[in-house]
Amino acid sequence: MLRIYGDSQSGNCYKIKLLLYILSIEHEWIHVDILAGETHTDEFKKMNPNSRIPVLLLANGSILTESNAILNFLAEGSEYLPKDRYLRAQVLQWQFFEQYSHEPFIATARYINKYLGLPEDRRAEYEAKQEGGHRALSVMEQQLSQSDFLVGSSLTIADISLYAYTHVAHEGGFELDGYVAIRRWIDRIEQRDDYLAMNG
Amino acid sequence: MLRIYGDSQSGNCYKIKLLLYILSIEHEWIHVDILAGETHTDEFKKMNPNSRIPVLLLANGSILTESNAILNFLAEGSEYLPKDRYLRAQVLQWQFFEQYSHEPFIATARYINKYLGLPEDRRAEYEAKQEGGHRALSVMEQQLSQSDFLVGSSLTIADISLYAYTHVAHEGGFELDGYVAIRRWIDRIEQRDDYLAMNG
Repeated sequence: MLRIYGDSQSGNCYKIKLLLYILSIEHEWIHVDILAGETHTDEFKKMNPNSRIPVLLLANGSILTESNAILNFLAEGSEYLPKDRYLRAQVLQWQFFEQYSHEPFIATARYINKYLGLPEDRRAEYEAKQEGGHRALSVMEQQLSQSDFLVGSSLTIADISLYAYTHVAHEGGFELDGYVAIRRWIDRIEQRDDYLAMNG
Repeated sequence: MLRIYGDSQSGNCYKIKLLLYILSIEHEWIHVDILAGETHTDEFKKMNPNSRIPVLLLANGSILTESNAILNFLAEGSEYLPKDRYLRAQVLQWQFFEQYSHEPFIATARYINKYLGLPEDRRAEYEAKQEGGHRALSVMEQQLSQSDFLVGSSLTIADISLYAYTHVAHEGGFELDGYVAIRRWIDRIEQRDDYLAMNG
């Protein structure tokens, strides 16, 4: 059976949890507590020397890290990862956008606010994250004003990647009131019968 | 014909240039000057609202952004992108590692030092990048001590991605003397008959 090491309150881990649920893939979920330093033990570093969750452990003992690489691996052959070469590349385009231009702002601001309680010595960093986060949301808004989903005409793992931290962006201080297309897209995902909430 | 908008002194653009050369793909290269603000014009933003290079423009007018998405698109069907599902996911794992844990430290430190001339008001940021850059190099060193290339037993686009900024890491203050396996891997790439240097 697949085993995932993660914390479903982390958007990077929740992406995997949501896709596993949509694909009805049986798995074992091992909770890892980042704040308690559990990604920095020697045992964990044998799985991921980069000390980050999520980690996927396959039945044959093979390991895969990086949330979006795991999504691509799990979605292969399903309707959530297109077969067409250009559409597949567009899925990757959005996932690399997510890791470089979205997550470092929105997820980091959320972490400082929600997990660390916005301590005074991180306030400047938190505030510095706001501009970049809104820039990323604007790029998404522009695409989602033109199409119901980020790539093609139905849900792909690109949407799952971006949904993970976007739907909790307010926890990092990013109000979504002005992003009409993003809010409709969030509703579209949450109204699915196979939707699983972050706390679900 | 393919058209690339980029600056080959940027590692993210050079990745594409090197792969195009290895694959002998004819293309037109349009130089974009970041420092002159050319990624922030309305015309450029129509191609990439995120204002970043490289951008790939296909003969049919379709656009693709994000360096690693472009690499995956161009390498599809070649020996530089494995067909095996797990190996493909490992390629992506290293590429996401590159964008999240390597590029933001090594490329940013290089940019501050080489392009901006290490101005006093960026020195603290430059110095803060050193620890994360060395952490990323250590993760690479660990893998390359066990295998000649990052994924499987031959060159893939994972190596091309990581090579781009690693081989100029010293321009960001990262001396590679202590990274024996990385230096051998760099030699292995540079000794190929189809190697093209960043300035080539």
